[in-house]
Amino acid sequence: MTTEVKATNVVWHDGEVSRTDRYRILGQKGATLWFTGLSGSGKSTVAVALEKELAKRGRLCYRLDGDNIRLGINKNLGFSAEDRTENIRRIGEIAKLFVDTGVLALTSFISPYRADRDSARALHEQAGMEFIEVYVDCPLGEAEKRDPKGLYKKARAGEIKNFTGISDPYEAPEQPELVLKTAEMSLDEEVAAVIALLEKRGILLAV
Amino acid sequence: MTTEVKATNVVWHDGEVSRTDRYRILGQKGATLWFTGLSGSGKSTVAVALEKELAKRGRLCYRLDGDNIRLGINKNLGFSAEDRTENIRRIGEIAKLFVDTGVLALTSFISPYRADRDSARALHEQAGMEFIEVYVDCPLGEAEKRDPKGLYKKARAGEIKNFTGISDPYEAPEQPELVLKTAEMSLDEEVAAVIALLEKRGILLAV
Repeated sequence: MTTEVKATNVVWHDGEVSRTDRYRILGQKGATLWFTGLSGSGKSTVAVALEKELAKRGRLCYRLDGDNIRLGINKNLGFSAEDRTENIRRIGEIAKLFVDTGVLALTSFISPYRADRDSARALHEQAGMEFIEVYVDCPLGEAEKRDPKGLYKKARAGEIKNFTGISDPYEAPEQPELVLKTAEMSLDEEVAAVIALLEKRGILLAV
Repeated sequence: MTTEVKATNVVWHDGEVSRTDRYRILGQKGATLWFTGLSGSGKSTVAVALEKELAKRGRLCYRLDGDNIRLGINKNLGFSAEDRTENIRRIGEIAKLFVDTGVLALTSFISPYRADRDSARALHEQAGMEFIEVYVDCPLGEAEKRDPKGLYKKARAGEIKNFTGISDPYEAPEQPELVLKTAEMSLDEEVAAVIALLEKRGILLAV
C-alpha cells in the first residue's frame, strides 16, 4: 500500500495471544475469500450460499458486502476512482483483521481495479495470511440482462456515472485462485468449487 | 453518526446466517469492550492481560489497538480533531462488525471526545449489540510520571501537538459501565473486575 502514514509516534504492539492461539481456539484457519466481478455477476449470491454451507459445518464466517460496508465504515466514500481505491483499501485492512482473528472473511465487491486487489492481496501475504481471489466471471451481456437492481438500465440512461462495465473499466484478474463462470455453473457447483479449494489449501481442517 | 452517506444505489443485504447462528457456532456473545483514558493510563496493559485470561478460557477476542489500527486501516489519519473523530468513527464501525461476528472486541484508544464515544455506543446499541465502556482512570500526574513512550516529555517540549491532557482535552466518561482506577488497583484486580462484569452481563456464558 502506498498510503502515507500520517500518524507519528506509533509503534506496533504485540499482545501475548498469538494468531495461532486464536486459530486453535476456533479450530480453523482464517482466510479472506475475495470475490470480484461485475455488478450482477453473482458475487453476493455465491457468498451468501457459501456462508450458509460453511455455517452448517460449524465454521465461522463473516460476509463483508459491497453494499453493507458502504452503509457503515465506508459511508463517507463515493464512486470516484479515488474513493473506490480507498474503499477497497479499507476493506482489505478490515478483512486482514478478520483473518488475523481466525475468521473466514467473504468479501464481495466489484473491486474493478487490479492494482487495488493486488494491494489487498499484498497486505495479507506480507503478514503470512491466506488470500483467495475468486473471479466471478459473467459476461457483461448476461449481467446486464439479469440487472437485479436495475442499475445497468440507469447507467445506460446516464443516471448513474462511473458505472463499472458501462462508463468505468473492469480489469479482470490475471491469476485468480478460482474462476466461477456463473452463466454456466449452478449455485451448488459454485459453492462446491470454493469448498473444494478451501479443503485443498488446508483451511477447513482443524488446526 | 452524522456522516453523510455519499454512496447511492446501496441497500442492506441480509444473509441467511444470522448473528445468533454465529454466536451459537462460537459459544459466546460478541461484545465491544471500549477502553478509554489518557495516554499512559494503562489501557493497552489491561487489554493485553484480559485477552490472555480470556484466551485461557477458550474465548475468542481480538484487540483493536490505538497504535496498531493507525498503522493499518487508519494510516491516512492524523491527530487533528477531525481526524481523531474519523479515527474513532471507523474503529466503532469495525468493532461493530466484530461483535456481529461473535468476537469480543477489545478497543484501547485514548478516544478523548465524549461525542465520538457516544457515537460508537449508539452504533452498537441501535443494532442490539453489547457496548461496554471501561474508563481507565489514571490521574494526569501519574500518567505523565509513567510516560512509557516518552510522549508527555515531547508534548511538554512542544514537539508533539494536539496531545491529550496537555494541549488537547480529555472528556471523562459520565456513565461508563466500569471504572478502573489503575493508580490504585493491581493488574490482576483490573482483569478480575472486567471478567466479573462480563459474567454478570451473560456474555461469557455459552449461548
